[in-house]
Amino acid sequence: MAEQENTTNLSELGEFALIDKLVEDVNIYNESTIKGVGDDAAVINHGDEETLVSVDILCEGVHFDMTYCPLKHLGYKAAVVNFSDIYAMNGTPTQIVVGMGISSKYSVEAIQEIYSGIRLACDRYHVDLVGGDTTASKSGLFISITVMGKAKKEDIVYRSGAKPNDLLCVSGDLGAAYTGLLILEREKAAFMADPNMQPEFAGYDYILERQLKPEARWDIVKRLKDAKVKPTAMLDISDGLASEVLHICKESKVGCMLYEDRIPMNQKTIQTAKDFNIVPSIAALNGGEDYELLFTVAQSDYEKIKDMEDVRIIGYITADEGQANILTADDHQVPIEAQGFKHF
Amino acid sequence: MAEQENTTNLSELGEFALIDKLVEDVNIYNESTIKGVGDDAAVINHGDEETLVSVDILCEGVHFDMTYCPLKHLGYKAAVVNFSDIYAMNGTPTQIVVGMGISSKYSVEAIQEIYSGIRLACDRYHVDLVGGDTTASKSGLFISITVMGKAKKEDIVYRSGAKPNDLLCVSGDLGAAYTGLLILEREKAAFMADPNMQPEFAGYDYILERQLKPEARWDIVKRLKDAKVKPTAMLDISDGLASEVLHICKESKVGCMLYEDRIPMNQKTIQTAKDFNIVPSIAALNGGEDYELLFTVAQSDYEKIKDMEDVRIIGYITADEGQANILTADDHQVPIEAQGFKHF
Repeated sequence: MAEQENTTNLSELGEFALIDKLVEDVNIYNESTIKGVGDDAAVINHGDEETLVSVDILCEGVHFDMTYCPLKHLGYKAAVVNFSDIYAMNGTPTQIVVGMGISSKYSVEAIQEIYSGIRLACDRYHVDLVGGDTTASKSGLFISITVMGKAKKEDIVYRSGAKPNDLLCVSGDLGAAYTGLLILEREKAAFMADPNMQPEFAGYDYILERQLKPEARWDIVKRLKDAKVKPTAMLDISDGLASEVLHICKESKVGCMLYEDRIPMNQKTIQTAKDFNIVPSIAALNGGEDYELLFTVAQSDYEKIKDMEDVRIIGYITADEGQANILTADDHQVPIEAQGFKHF
Repeated sequence: MAEQENTTNLSELGEFALIDKLVEDVNIYNESTIKGVGDDAAVINHGDEETLVSVDILCEGVHFDMTYCPLKHLGYKAAVVNFSDIYAMNGTPTQIVVGMGISSKYSVEAIQEIYSGIRLACDRYHVDLVGGDTTASKSGLFISITVMGKAKKEDIVYRSGAKPNDLLCVSGDLGAAYTGLLILEREKAAFMADPNMQPEFAGYDYILERQLKPEARWDIVKRLKDAKVKPTAMLDISDGLASEVLHICKESKVGCMLYEDRIPMNQKTIQTAKDFNIVPSIAALNGGEDYELLFTVAQSDYEKIKDMEDVRIIGYITADEGQANILTADDHQVPIEAQGFKHF
């Protein structure tokens, strides 16, 4: 991370002053937020609706790399990937609490920049930042965000509701975030070898943005609602299509057939994967962080879903529990294997 | 951390199998827990009650030291300090989500040991573990716990409700956790200098337990409720009495007078502080992690509170905003200064 001028050491400012700085003028969007930042706990009232809650953690050197991840984007992404979990339940995110562990190499301004990204995400998605904990860490930075959301009981979609013959659908396109990461890592390696090299990012905007600044698919949730389609199962694709499909199959006690040639991929993603000698569909199946929605709908919703914007039917659910298969483009049927994101 | 036999590398097991291992047979105690671990988000319904939410982070090398912190205690403490935040709002903790970043030096068994501590705390306090995120970290271990709780709207106690002439009260005794830490660090230093040395912990059980395995004061919350005393302001003492008193004064826009000789301290705490050439009351004022409750009650509740078990009146609130003072044992009036826990 390049040193900036006029930065403030965390130790100069102290914990309480830092927190004050980070949360001043935080906006409140939801009536359910009775009390936000500033007490032992936030107070939330979702009345007759259910409260949804989820947590996601991002660690420096594992989920992000400071050499190429702009701080504001990092904050934005940390928030949005949490919102995505709530949309994946067919709910609406309403509040977050933010935990951060920060090593002394970070300046106050750097932390504020991360927070500005978190707050930008909150402003765009109308989510209230209601609390947090900010402490020192021995080395590196990590961000833990817990999101709460709301949903009517009858609207909630679990992973466990898929039924035989349901259609397996996905939003947007897949593999882009992973190929974006490949480009970032290639340019980092080149820069490490020769610091005078200028990174070559031209033409890669789409896949880089998918990696660095993903969005949560609230629009798909709304589109389904408007079309009166309630998915039978749904989750967001954070670890790669393969492991998410297996989650649905396992939780719903069903099998599935997925068609390789139906997996939606952007042309730039396909080309970049090929440049790295990776079969494009493998980038979609095993590359994570696209934050698209994977969901199943009843056959009876076929007419409503078949031409829905930015939604693609990629397979169907079977009654054969434990049998999750993919039909490859060259007509071979092979079992889907979970790769997930191998962090450990 | 000593290497154990028969341990499993995190990389052998993989993320999903680890999570399965950690959450198998998790108990559910609260009707409000509609859906726990295993989907994108947990589902919670607090009906007509308010939901309270708070997050706390513990980092290796900052909040705990693996050389002397037993893993199970670490998990227990991580959970209990969060419960404490909910009790400090006069609420009841009901659910937690656990985020963990783990470096590769930890074995699966070590992580399970931490979780067993978290689950012990959940079992004792009847709190439901409803979700989490477990990932690798580049170095060290950190734990982020978000707790949710419930309270009737009219029961919630904020930091901002203290009024002039209210009595300032504290539960239990203070400074013990800090002096316990002094002992642990002394023995660690001795061990580092000579690994053949046996640590000398005999006789220090009380203050060591206060540091390593604190409890949250649900019993005080209950005692106050049973006596029909609703505090006007309350928080838990995580950073030291001084900074917590200042929080109440700042949020309530009042001042206070605190009597040094009224601060409750255990005899072992006093003796240990003296052994380290620390004025005992300084250990109470600036030492953190006692997790006792600091609260204010109306003068009219004096009769109900004056002989309450394990509760001590240590001062009173004044109308002089910005004037938080302590009357020392030798009759000097000095301003209270926030030291807090200087992590940065």
